[in-house]
Amino acid sequence: MKQHFQKEDARGDLDAATAVTRTPSVSSRAISMQASPLRKLAAAASARAAAGIKVYRLNIGQPDLPTPPAVFEAVRSFSQPTLAYAPSNGLPIPLTAWKSYYRQNGIEIDESEMVITAGGSEAIVFAMSAVCDPDDEIIVFEPFYTNYNGFATLASVNLRPVPLSIENGFHLPPADEIERHITPRTRAILLCNPANPTGTIYTRGEIEGIVEIVGRRGLFLLSDEVYREFAFDAPAISVMSFPEIRDRAVLLDSCSKRFNVCGARIGVLASHNAEVVQTALKFGMARLSVATLEQLALVPLLESPARYTAPIVEEFRKRRDLVYEELRSIPGATFYRPEGAFYIVIGLPVRDSEHFARWLVEEFEHEKETVLLAPAQGFYATPGKGLNEVRIAFTLKGEDLRRSLSLIRLALEAYSKKS
Amino acid sequence: MKQHFQKEDARGDLDAATAVTRTPSVSSRAISMQASPLRKLAAAASARAAAGIKVYRLNIGQPDLPTPPAVFEAVRSFSQPTLAYAPSNGLPIPLTAWKSYYRQNGIEIDESEMVITAGGSEAIVFAMSAVCDPDDEIIVFEPFYTNYNGFATLASVNLRPVPLSIENGFHLPPADEIERHITPRTRAILLCNPANPTGTIYTRGEIEGIVEIVGRRGLFLLSDEVYREFAFDAPAISVMSFPEIRDRAVLLDSCSKRFNVCGARIGVLASHNAEVVQTALKFGMARLSVATLEQLALVPLLESPARYTAPIVEEFRKRRDLVYEELRSIPGATFYRPEGAFYIVIGLPVRDSEHFARWLVEEFEHEKETVLLAPAQGFYATPGKGLNEVRIAFTLKGEDLRRSLSLIRLALEAYSKKS
Repeated sequence: MKQHFQKEDARGDLDAATAVTRTPSVSSRAISMQASPLRKLAAAASARAAAGIKVYRLNIGQPDLPTPPAVFEAVRSFSQPTLAYAPSNGLPIPLTAWKSYYRQNGIEIDESEMVITAGGSEAIVFAMSAVCDPDDEIIVFEPFYTNYNGFATLASVNLRPVPLSIENGFHLPPADEIERHITPRTRAILLCNPANPTGTIYTRGEIEGIVEIVGRRGLFLLSDEVYREFAFDAPAISVMSFPEIRDRAVLLDSCSKRFNVCGARIGVLASHNAEVVQTALKFGMARLSVATLEQLALVPLLESPARYTAPIVEEFRKRRDLVYEELRSIPGATFYRPEGAFYIVIGLPVRDSEHFARWLVEEFEHEKETVLLAPAQGFYATPGKGLNEVRIAFTLKGEDLRRSLSLIRLALEAYSKKS
Repeated sequence: MKQHFQKEDARGDLDAATAVTRTPSVSSRAISMQASPLRKLAAAASARAAAGIKVYRLNIGQPDLPTPPAVFEAVRSFSQPTLAYAPSNGLPIPLTAWKSYYRQNGIEIDESEMVITAGGSEAIVFAMSAVCDPDDEIIVFEPFYTNYNGFATLASVNLRPVPLSIENGFHLPPADEIERHITPRTRAILLCNPANPTGTIYTRGEIEGIVEIVGRRGLFLLSDEVYREFAFDAPAISVMSFPEIRDRAVLLDSCSKRFNVCGARIGVLASHNAEVVQTALKFGMARLSVATLEQLALVPLLESPARYTAPIVEEFRKRRDLVYEELRSIPGATFYRPEGAFYIVIGLPVRDSEHFARWLVEEFEHEKETVLLAPAQGFYATPGKGLNEVRIAFTLKGEDLRRSLSLIRLALEAYSKKS
């Protein structure tokens, strides 16, 4: 309400000389929108790099691996004279390629049950807006992908976090603990599996628990499965494999990570619930279409996914193993063995990981090298949680990861002496 | 409220056999979201084409002209190994190219005052969400670009239409008539100049009137100027050329039309109001980035815009003249001389233009040819307005436009005999 009073003051407050009011204020949702906590320290890192210090960037999920050349070949072979709007739900050939991709992953979904989106991001905004009105609630598991906050603010939806714990590798609590967070305004549970930022893959039993809750409580289940293939020990189970929630499961997906095409911005929303797909299509019609070239460029990858994802996942498995081993040499670190994705949240022997991360990138160096970390507070909605945690993304090659972890160890030693 | 009751019923109504509730319903905003009225008759047109009837499509703004080869050359010359995320505000080189484009159009705007968006569409959603909270209001001039409805629904913003009239070529009413629509919840006026769907270009006096209102009433002025170059008689005046509203003018733009790159999905939000730009950037951070290849592909066009836009605009000027001349031969048609963009709204001697348009595409033919029109009701928010109007897009070459208008004349004759 404060916001509105401010505005009404502004309107009334004429400058007699010019008859122009004070600058109008942006909206409350604009003010409450957080800047990406992942990018907060980026400027400090750039400044440090400019000063001749090598900064190992473990903060964001932009893999270092090359994009498959098939993508660029497909782009180059585009031969139509006009780069025209695609249909709002997607071009026919890419839609069929997505269907083929899902079939090869054990998921049967028809072209008419999908809308191609501008990255997984747009799929999430469409899904939130399709199932929630302003002030409705979605349950998330904390820590969660920080941009869920941004999408929720944009869609005026409230996230209700269910706390997880590093002690059990961020696995889900019992059903009754989850259900305690359901209110009359709850419309959906949003799952990310394999999970960003924790690397956790939920067991069949855990997913069954969620499936049972959404069935019994009349909720939607929104499932972000963009890390599907990054499953190192056992496959990740899709919510689409539970026929009992065919009518309420909504799959949110993206090509970015599995094919190393982050800059292509191609995702998909898929559901057997025709109303949800129709709504996503109506939102899609408003923004007309998704980039034509990229939709086509990903077709060869979607048609033969394993060929492209297998070597990528193998590389990340090695990195996961390396990080897990190297973490043992950091005294006082709390960690677990991530089962998927390419992240891990670790507890550090510090009081405030954001302070440590800032000091690390702004002041620390060892042989002219330092590290950029993502403080984990940004992945929590509950104030005061995750204060000693950081997220590491395995987006550097093995030797650089090893060096980064050794720098963290050295930095912690120096930091503890300093304070 | 109805929606919420339904949901609560659903939650309570357990099927004893399965303990699964009824399928949850989508949100009220999902239900109130309109499907694109421009695409409503598209299926009928496709069916007719499949039956061997040639359908001249005058319904959507997808120009038939080729995309400049420089776009495809730029895409082909991309030589980085990884298609990585761009920065959330845009890549540096494209941002500088946008600055150069604006300077060549008499607008001084810095790289830091812009956010590159996924088409003009995303710029509009970001702007609406940046200045409005749910249930806040934006004033639009009716008829208006139909997708403003979709963006407003997605952002839970209410559009307040100020009616315009075909009698004066859809020019603006006096200031007091506009101000009557301002309420305590009004946050902005949204202008489209040159206007879609009317082809109207507002005079300096009209824009000054708007500038004066937003100054005096503490509102933002959101200005959709995607048709900037399509000005056939006198240049379109940008809201960015009024220093007195530097703090509240927000420019919404897109490359799609002026460069024939509709499928690239590149737009921009620009403002001297740092708070608005910062908000757009925060929304942008949530969705990470806009397609990397297309941002780069448009650089050569943005650096030398006139070279590309001049021949395109010249072609549309000829079409505008042709349509204006040919309309004289349609008895009972109401029309005016559009000053810009590539649209015209015409009044037809029919009671219900949607019925006529459907009959035209589904049943009428002359020498195995017919026409697809956009009924104008979709461009009005006020029920019962524009019932006899249609929008025509000049997106076909001259001889096809001439034939289309002659088909409309023949169809009207047959339609009047039929009813």
